[in-house]
Amino acid sequence: MSIATIEWVDGRIRLIDQTLLPNEFKQIYCDNLEAVWESIKLLRVRGAPAIGIAAALGTVLGVWKSRAANYAEFSDELRKVTDYLATSRPTAVNLFWALNRMIMTAEKHQHASISQLKKVLLDEALAIIEEDRAMCRAIGKHGLQLLNEGDTILTHCNAGGLATSDYGTALAVMFTAHEAGKNISVYADETRPLLQGSRLTAWELMQAGIDVTLICDNMAAQVMKEGKIQCAVVGADRIAANGDAANKIGTYNVAILAQAHEIPFYVAAPTSTLDFSLDTGDRIPIEERAAEEITEGFGKRTAPDGVKVYSPAFDVTPASLITAIITDKGIALPPYTVSLRGLVTA
Amino acid sequence: MSIATIEWVDGRIRLIDQTLLPNEFKQIYCDNLEAVWESIKLLRVRGAPAIGIAAALGTVLGVWKSRAANYAEFSDELRKVTDYLATSRPTAVNLFWALNRMIMTAEKHQHASISQLKKVLLDEALAIIEEDRAMCRAIGKHGLQLLNEGDTILTHCNAGGLATSDYGTALAVMFTAHEAGKNISVYADETRPLLQGSRLTAWELMQAGIDVTLICDNMAAQVMKEGKIQCAVVGADRIAANGDAANKIGTYNVAILAQAHEIPFYVAAPTSTLDFSLDTGDRIPIEERAAEEITEGFGKRTAPDGVKVYSPAFDVTPASLITAIITDKGIALPPYTVSLRGLVTA
Repeated sequence: MSIATIEWVDGRIRLIDQTLLPNEFKQIYCDNLEAVWESIKLLRVRGAPAIGIAAALGTVLGVWKSRAANYAEFSDELRKVTDYLATSRPTAVNLFWALNRMIMTAEKHQHASISQLKKVLLDEALAIIEEDRAMCRAIGKHGLQLLNEGDTILTHCNAGGLATSDYGTALAVMFTAHEAGKNISVYADETRPLLQGSRLTAWELMQAGIDVTLICDNMAAQVMKEGKIQCAVVGADRIAANGDAANKIGTYNVAILAQAHEIPFYVAAPTSTLDFSLDTGDRIPIEERAAEEITEGFGKRTAPDGVKVYSPAFDVTPASLITAIITDKGIALPPYTVSLRGLVTA
Repeated sequence: MSIATIEWVDGRIRLIDQTLLPNEFKQIYCDNLEAVWESIKLLRVRGAPAIGIAAALGTVLGVWKSRAANYAEFSDELRKVTDYLATSRPTAVNLFWALNRMIMTAEKHQHASISQLKKVLLDEALAIIEEDRAMCRAIGKHGLQLLNEGDTILTHCNAGGLATSDYGTALAVMFTAHEAGKNISVYADETRPLLQGSRLTAWELMQAGIDVTLICDNMAAQVMKEGKIQCAVVGADRIAANGDAANKIGTYNVAILAQAHEIPFYVAAPTSTLDFSLDTGDRIPIEERAAEEITEGFGKRTAPDGVKVYSPAFDVTPASLITAIITDKGIALPPYTVSLRGLVTA
């Protein structure tokens, strides 16, 4: 992304309102904590790494005008801010990871003045952005090895530049391959209900000059059967110690289809997405979203009034369906319980 | 359906414009052949059996004002009418089955007067409607045996009353079970791109008082994983001699998911859907539909301008994934090459 998905500009957060894409490209400013919370909740900013950045910058914004007299007061305010931001979306671990990192940073500098502390927290948030950028490039570099000349890749949802501060995670692999001169094509699942695939992924890939074909989610099996797909690459919002990976609803579906057609299924995610506190994916909380996103998703009612709706926003793909996990620290292969630990302790 | 999906009224065809449901319930009249062709093409009337009925009634309409002086002239006109209607949609075999039946009927009565011939053709079309009604009830009765008290059934697209002249095919099983006092629930895939599941199936089931929950197509795997589904029942547009079944895009997807979760997968279709001229489903023509149905399906552009789109309207589920085929003549079990023949020659 040549224009930042999310950034700090003169005491405010500026972000691309992704709910308006691709019809309208608009950057909005958040100058208070509630606006940041709402931007995460309403998916103006989305994607696990970008949510982490929004949480870090949101924390800075939340304490930026603090008049705390001492660290104890400041720490109280900080906790209120991070507790509040933590309620925005439950599934992506990067949210909690970033909030926790901000709290730890403050604690480490508790003897600094309040104005110094604010500066330290801003620097930490900016460091998260820089690390995110480096992470994207590293994922792209590692993932590149898994792609062959002429490959066509299926992806689901948007794990691209708009989900991070730079190249994305799953899409980083494609951007890097394209930059390296590899001839690749992509099929993008539109990704109901909110169409991040058609609105964001297709848009990003077209901007980069990568050949992309849009399909409905339920067409992926047919496209695989026709022999058009050589591998699937998706992102993740949280990965358990055993490799079970939570990602946008429909990812588990794609993983089953890939296995049925003997197509490699890759998850691309930063190591900050790893949650070693969970042995398996069974306890990853799955956010449920409002019925209206399905029944009135396009500004027009498309289901009967009063119909019951079930709308899990994420699903968990069992590690047994994942061929490899591409991280910023390298590629993990099964058994993930060993390989994922190995990556972060190396 | 207490109101007919499609019927003959005083020299015109009256049908429910299904593109307007569930927001608007409107019956429209077709008083010329082009209007019938357009109604099939634009999915105002859809579903394999209903398309067959539309084709039969459309044939009557096409020759209703014929001034042919003799059978040779009449036969020429009839052929032009049926050839034209045959171009409306390529996948459902019922379309060709009905057109062929009308041609055969005319030939059998070639010595009748032209005005008698018109009457004979109308009677034949009305007979197809009556047979369709009996077919729906028979499918319901046979399918009922496969459902247990308390079952929750997943269905895809709309194989209900709106797809036939009466109870439907897949939904006939549910309507019949409900009428018989069985306590059942249904999950309906919304069925992108045109949302027949949310617009039509959910609507029909709610009207009948059956508990129905709407999901996006990509949520079916998660719902199965949660143990919520006891079987899947879908319709079919064409079934090859070996049991391979063409149905709305996404059906093959559901079949793979059902197998992965060890859930029975049933196809419900009339024997008129069987095409013994095809050994397997490989040569069933798959209609491709316009990109705009995906990119602007709800009156609002939801994908970048100029994006490439692939939109197969159907897929073919291999017989190996089908637990049983429920027909009006009974239930066929694998191997279908034997059992399907057995049903129609019994």
